[in-house]
Amino acid sequence: MRAYMIGYKLPVDMIGGQVAKIVVSRNEHYPIGKYVTGSFGWRTHTICNPEKLKGNAGFAPFSLLPDISPYPVSLALGILGMPGNTAYFGMKEICRPKSGETIVVSGAAGAVGTHVGQIGKLSGCRVVGFAGTDEKCYYLEKELGFDRAFNYKTVDIKAALKEGAPRKVDCYFDNVGGQISSNIINYMNKYGRVAVCGSISSYNESCSPKATILQPAIVLKELKIEGFLVDRWIDRWEEGINANLRWLVDGKLKYEEKVYHGFDNMVDAFVGMLRGENTGKAVVKIK
Amino acid sequence: MRAYMIGYKLPVDMIGGQVAKIVVSRNEHYPIGKYVTGSFGWRTHTICNPEKLKGNAGFAPFSLLPDISPYPVSLALGILGMPGNTAYFGMKEICRPKSGETIVVSGAAGAVGTHVGQIGKLSGCRVVGFAGTDEKCYYLEKELGFDRAFNYKTVDIKAALKEGAPRKVDCYFDNVGGQISSNIINYMNKYGRVAVCGSISSYNESCSPKATILQPAIVLKELKIEGFLVDRWIDRWEEGINANLRWLVDGKLKYEEKVYHGFDNMVDAFVGMLRGENTGKAVVKIK
Repeated sequence: MRAYMIGYKLPVDMIGGQVAKIVVSRNEHYPIGKYVTGSFGWRTHTICNPEKLKGNAGFAPFSLLPDISPYPVSLALGILGMPGNTAYFGMKEICRPKSGETIVVSGAAGAVGTHVGQIGKLSGCRVVGFAGTDEKCYYLEKELGFDRAFNYKTVDIKAALKEGAPRKVDCYFDNVGGQISSNIINYMNKYGRVAVCGSISSYNESCSPKATILQPAIVLKELKIEGFLVDRWIDRWEEGINANLRWLVDGKLKYEEKVYHGFDNMVDAFVGMLRGENTGKAVVKIK
Repeated sequence: MRAYMIGYKLPVDMIGGQVAKIVVSRNEHYPIGKYVTGSFGWRTHTICNPEKLKGNAGFAPFSLLPDISPYPVSLALGILGMPGNTAYFGMKEICRPKSGETIVVSGAAGAVGTHVGQIGKLSGCRVVGFAGTDEKCYYLEKELGFDRAFNYKTVDIKAALKEGAPRKVDCYFDNVGGQISSNIINYMNKYGRVAVCGSISSYNESCSPKATILQPAIVLKELKIEGFLVDRWIDRWEEGINANLRWLVDGKLKYEEKVYHGFDNMVDAFVGMLRGENTGKAVVKIK
């Protein structure tokens, strides 16, 4: 959201994805009481014409929410929404993990990272995560089944890789960019794949920082590094949602939400997310 | 060659590719007077068993040289050999240029770079090169038809890109790595492709240098960056040789050789190549 807001001219509604309850309707396909998802931004009420909201995924493509009870509707913003599809398509189409390989994920305790690691385990891989607190690392190892998780703020990255990935790294799901990513990419195996999903470490900088160059490893290991925005797969959106829902129902995919309450707490929730308070998806629930 | 020699224990023959004339033979498929190519290293004479020399491409896969007269046999080390196939497969399989796109190549005046730029023009693209002297740039523009060529030692890279690539960059053939590559990659269009062929700028460093990170551009432009070693296509070796030979015969592909003479001048030739003395392929001819 930081990266995208640079392109907007103020004043403007803060961008963001919502699950919204229909309270008034003139369209029989969207009856009162049902829920829709959309990239409406930070607002309490939205008046919109569903026919005009087709397009890219954004934070949540506009759609009528199917009944996902007993799960909370907020999952449509998490594992059953954009972050879930980011993990699903990034792994399936770019990392392409094979059983027995080693996957590293940075930003591992976030909505996407927790999901990526679990898909890695479901793919028969060794999974190593980097996250920002010891508590998050404990959660990743004990609750989600990561083989190892390291607090990037306190460990030596190279030593952690040596310990956590004794057969080196075949896939890297990069949420953060910067020097830690240079260290990981320089520790990869021949024909390794890197899915570049985000560059959190640099979004606050006025100009991009420097880090150890990647080209020697890219050439000699013949690595493939690809960036993606999840709306590339907008035509296959349901495929991802259904695959994640099936894993969820089968008990193979766990999720965590950090829930804040009340519209007035939007800013605190956002800043908290930037500070790393959340494990899994940060959501704000409003009556 | 610098990058690979690190893996050898001294003393050892210096590695390298040769075209060698058969002067003694006990194998009827390899008669006296014919020529073979191979990665024999720096030596005047080699005794070898052809059946045992299958394998990777190295600097020149072992093979009997077909008659390529009136062209000199040394082309089997250049446009009709490993550098030629590096350009051919790197462009065809990784850059995948489309007509009307803009291609940038670094190390543009070398054996691979000159070839890459010409394939770019044959593909209907705008071609921009970076090389190390004004004379080389003049040659690239006037002789090889590059749309623009810049001396990376004297220009501002960002300004040169703005001038040379007004529609930004779709394909980048990277021979050098480092900061210039960061500048080019940060100037690419959506879905741009980068073929990483070398990292010349860092081979002399004891540890890899730092440069502006690539992840923000990789994500937001959804770039694909892939490194390669040409022996990946050893099974399609003849395809590349024949395509380049056809272009050569049709007058569509030009080449330049920097020829040194005499075995005793091998070291001077090598150091001269590292200093950037050569345009096109540097070869040493021995009586």
